[in-house]
Amino acid sequence: MNIKDIGGEEGFIERMRQTHAGAVGDGLILGIGDDAAIFETPAGRQSVVTTDMLVEQVHFRRDWSDPYSIGWKSAAVNLSDIAAMGAEPTLAFLSIAFSQGESVETLDRIYDGFSDCLNRYGARLAGGDTNSTPDGMVISVTLMGSVKSGQAFTRSGARPGDVLLVTGALGDSAAGLGLLQKYGLARSEKVDKDLINLHRRPQPRVMISRVLAETGQVRAAMDLSDGLLRDVSKLCAASQVGVRIDTAQLPISNATQNAAKMLAQDPTLLALQGGEDYELLVAVAPESVDAVREAVPSLTVIGEILKSGRRIVAANGVDDLDPGAGGWDHFAQ
Amino acid sequence: MNIKDIGGEEGFIERMRQTHAGAVGDGLILGIGDDAAIFETPAGRQSVVTTDMLVEQVHFRRDWSDPYSIGWKSAAVNLSDIAAMGAEPTLAFLSIAFSQGESVETLDRIYDGFSDCLNRYGARLAGGDTNSTPDGMVISVTLMGSVKSGQAFTRSGARPGDVLLVTGALGDSAAGLGLLQKYGLARSEKVDKDLINLHRRPQPRVMISRVLAETGQVRAAMDLSDGLLRDVSKLCAASQVGVRIDTAQLPISNATQNAAKMLAQDPTLLALQGGEDYELLVAVAPESVDAVREAVPSLTVIGEILKSGRRIVAANGVDDLDPGAGGWDHFAQ
Repeated sequence: MNIKDIGGEEGFIERMRQTHAGAVGDGLILGIGDDAAIFETPAGRQSVVTTDMLVEQVHFRRDWSDPYSIGWKSAAVNLSDIAAMGAEPTLAFLSIAFSQGESVETLDRIYDGFSDCLNRYGARLAGGDTNSTPDGMVISVTLMGSVKSGQAFTRSGARPGDVLLVTGALGDSAAGLGLLQKYGLARSEKVDKDLINLHRRPQPRVMISRVLAETGQVRAAMDLSDGLLRDVSKLCAASQVGVRIDTAQLPISNATQNAAKMLAQDPTLLALQGGEDYELLVAVAPESVDAVREAVPSLTVIGEILKSGRRIVAANGVDDLDPGAGGWDHFAQ
Repeated sequence: MNIKDIGGEEGFIERMRQTHAGAVGDGLILGIGDDAAIFETPAGRQSVVTTDMLVEQVHFRRDWSDPYSIGWKSAAVNLSDIAAMGAEPTLAFLSIAFSQGESVETLDRIYDGFSDCLNRYGARLAGGDTNSTPDGMVISVTLMGSVKSGQAFTRSGARPGDVLLVTGALGDSAAGLGLLQKYGLARSEKVDKDLINLHRRPQPRVMISRVLAETGQVRAAMDLSDGLLRDVSKLCAASQVGVRIDTAQLPISNATQNAAKMLAQDPTLLALQGGEDYELLVAVAPESVDAVREAVPSLTVIGEILKSGRRIVAANGVDDLDPGAGGWDHFAQ
């Protein structure tokens, strides 16, 4: 079915509105269907806003990712940014541009995945835009969140002596991508479907973020999207500090260890440089480590904030060769 | 100069941050450089949010529009949506995707145009995203605004008997586009550079909107982006009313009258169907007409809200043949 068959752009927007529009109430005054959405923030709270664009062939490939997963990931990467602020996700705005030949069924599945991910984490669709492209698809999402005034996590609060922790495991998404690159979709799914799904449908750490916010112990935080080494450098720059990372402590799953063997890659490098983990990196004072780990058992200590410099320390206590900035830069590859 | 020459994606973001980032303060707590921006809304006010995506070859062409104008228009179309809500624009988020070969100089000019337009109307850049595309440029903007609680203009408040008015003139942008399509850039600029600039650098009605908001007399409003006929139908659908438009009253500039002759087109059809006017369409009670026109002299009465139906009435008082929905639909062309 083509967009023309459902009444063109307006028919498409109405279809999406009926199926996916968030209900008004709970701060949303006016949703999809006017020139802009209207919302209000309760007294004592601040709003946070993030925006991320996903481009076909750059951020997703149709031969590796189904439409539902593309939609899911578009929501997840933005939810991860809101989680990185210690905020609760609230309202999403989804703009999508696609070529004339795109089927309504594909678009329905993209919206399904987007909505399911949003709703799982408590956010609603409140607006967006629909456009055509000469070729290829582009998805742009803006996501709002809400946080107690003055309580947002930022990248700039880390101090020398703070302990660095990370949620979950590192390198899974990169391992999944590596399998896709080497074997294609069908064979990769046979090797390890869980890793492929971790790459296609990341789970943003929204719930963990709220638990961390409750502890009141987080000094600095960010989410890992471009690879640990590259991202920790951003946190260090924002906080004007250095860092030591103990590579022996990096949480690496058995699945990624196994995939790394098949890919003839060092699993530690996958964990240091692999992007799209969407885990949270947090810095806390040494005396807070027990409390935050009790609140969030999936946190692993991976290093320490230093006054300056960057040390990557191997299991034997010797500084590893610094593998470079690594990670993902759209224009440096 | 290429993006690689200024340190890749991070170098580019830092360059843009230094040149174009909005200052913190006045509600903006944290701007560009963290996982999300943080802002707060004063007590007694609500926030409005709009988002618009512009795709190369669909919304702009490099051979017709310079980079500064592309940036300007990306801000202007969003500012127009905020004006349509009777709100003050506050914070903008600019996501841009472009191919590896794009020059830094071109991107600088796009950001210059974007910033100049934003700043002229009192808004600031607070975040965004940068990406690569396989080919072509995509710009996605989210713009926030602020309005007194409960005072936003919407499309749904028009009632039968209300008078319909429009700011400025209609059809100028379509006439400019028509000249570009027929003659190309160089000849069109010789014919009427003002019309070409109205098409490339629309002036959103932000100031007029604030004056209208002060009157407290606006029952319904929207901005005209897809052509009067198509847009008024949306207002009527939202308000569950009909409309009569008196074509003899449509404000059409001499420039558009002249261009229409050259293009062998009916200027009335340009005013009814031409898109991208970015004027405001407002409905007010009959007893409010004098007050709003005194406050905003550039308002012209163009018709009346009816209980139902849609009449397009010619100068002789006879209903014109309805020229159809007209206007711009990305997937119906």
